[in-house]
Amino acid sequence: MEMLLYWAGLSAVAVNALTGVLDAGRKQMDLIGVVMVGGATALGGGTVRDVLLGRPVFWIADQLYLFVALAATLVVFFAVRNHRLPPRLFLIPDAFGLALFSIVGTQIALEWQAPWLVASLLGMITGVVGGVLRDVLCNEVPLIFVRGELYASAAWGGALLLVGLQEWGVSPVVAMWAGMATVLGIRLAAMAFRITLPTYSERR
Amino acid sequence: MEMLLYWAGLSAVAVNALTGVLDAGRKQMDLIGVVMVGGATALGGGTVRDVLLGRPVFWIADQLYLFVALAATLVVFFAVRNHRLPPRLFLIPDAFGLALFSIVGTQIALEWQAPWLVASLLGMITGVVGGVLRDVLCNEVPLIFVRGELYASAAWGGALLLVGLQEWGVSPVVAMWAGMATVLGIRLAAMAFRITLPTYSERR
Amino acid sequence: MEMLLYWAGLSAVAVNALTGVLDAGRKQMDLIGVVMVGGATALGGGTVRDVLLGRPVFWIADQLYLFVALAATLVVFFAVRNHRLPPRLFLIPDAFGLALFSIVGTQIALEWQAPWLVASLLGMITGVVGGVLRDVLCNEVPLIFVRGELYASAAWGGALLLVGLQEWGVSPVVAMWAGMATVLGIRLAAMAFRITLPTYSERR
Repeated sequence: MEMLLYWAGLSAVAVNALTGVLDAGRKQMDLIGVVMVGGATALGGGTVRDVLLGRPVFWIADQLYLFVALAATLVVFFAVRNHRLPPRLFLIPDAFGLALFSIVGTQIALEWQAPWLVASLLGMITGVVGGVLRDVLCNEVPLIFVRGELYASAAWGGALLLVGLQEWGVSPVVAMWAGMATVLGIRLAAMAFRITLPTYSERR
Repeated sequence: MEMLLYWAGLSAVAVNALTGVLDAGRKQMDLIGVVMVGGATALGGGTVRDVLLGRPVFWIADQLYLFVALAATLVVFFAVRNHRLPPRLFLIPDAFGLALFSIVGTQIALEWQAPWLVASLLGMITGVVGGVLRDVLCNEVPLIFVRGELYASAAWGGALLLVGLQEWGVSPVVAMWAGMATVLGIRLAAMAFRITLPTYSERR
Repeated sequence: MEMLLYWAGLSAVAVNALTGVLDAGRKQMDLIGVVMVGGATALGGGTVRDVLLGRPVFWIADQLYLFVALAATLVVFFAVRNHRLPPRLFLIPDAFGLALFSIVGTQIALEWQAPWLVASLLGMITGVVGGVLRDVLCNEVPLIFVRGELYASAAWGGALLLVGLQEWGVSPVVAMWAGMATVLGIRLAAMAFRITLPTYSERR
């Protein structure tokens, strides 16, 4: 159980660093800019969760997360620079990062005794803040706020499922796999079939 | 006294959620985007105050704030969507939210033993951060930084009055009402008569 | 040693407030907007460092930093308003602020028992976050992310030197002076000779 949480966390950091680099690259940033955007995308969500919970920040307490984020950023930077990639390519790893981070974040908040609604929201925050930071740093309206495809709602749905399954007696490991599959499934289905939520106004 | 602080805090959360929804709506966000902007506007200021003070974050310690923010966001979203509202309408509830939040924030900081200047600044921060977050998330220059009408200065003035009155022996409840009336009065008067502070440069 | 840390910290706050005012002035902000941007530039980096470390925020624990930031902002505002300054002028004090903040931040993190890589990163964060906040509040892509001249990398280099020198037995005071000279030297040389890091793509 703790192993699953730890490995899922490390994978999420690496995958999110990858998406940060791909996105930052479009802005023609230099190496250190890419490292900072990659790092913020990889570590931002969990940092906000830990600060809100009053918990020691995960990458300060355990330097390994930091090494993974830096290594992933550098490897991707030198691997893909000067290659022309399809712009939507990074949406697939991004969906994996969303699923991993939102479930890991929810579970950590639950273990820190957060009430259920708070835990599910902190999970969603862990999942989406990295991408929001990435977009704000690149001076764009965060994608999750403008496009209609399910994103934060996919994360929140999976987080609520995780909380509910454990409430009903399902083991945490099974609940975590189910939660991750749910987030990933909703997000990929929403991208494939362009499923959207109602927007504020019909006048598009 | 504690009751006044609690109810003023809940009202501030509801009113700020309302302004967040009205403002986010102009950007054609979908439901979850509106929920997130509404939530950030409603809870952002108090969250920053609590993190800076090293105090447990108020909506994590007491889930009721979260329910109020969510409920206010959803009610406003479905009530006003597809209605065309005058764009300056939301400035009135925004002034109430500013007054409530800045006074509640200052009082909480004082009770947490912050020194007087820090307490008044934390009050101002509690009052304005929600709106700043809202504007940054919508990728606009925060309104309080560009328009000359008194906004943060109204909040700071009321916060300083609250601190001063209690220093001179006035009861906290009376001081809070006086502080809120001051913030609201300055802000509404500044809007009505277009009172402004000196700007950096005369060349407009 | 503690004296050096304290005075370097106060100087960094004053210098950063100065750059914040100069930069905010270009956006035609009013007095309170300038005060807020100046304050965020002066206090933002150290605040993020303290929150991440779980340390009491420096300007809440010691109000003197706040007075210095406010005084520097007000003095600069009234001194330079209505003067037309060369836009690149503020880059020189900005380099001093970067050097002071990144070294002070690293040293404080080391004394708070942060591991070496974390400490050097927190030093870099202390150095650059003020400027990033300033640019985000003014709705610009943070300068450190787009221009190729060494900025964050100068801060990180000096921070790593500070950590390394102390690891090898050099006294903290000497290591701090060496670190500050390194950051300042790299940054000024990079501006003078337009030294850059590799960017993501050759296609400019």
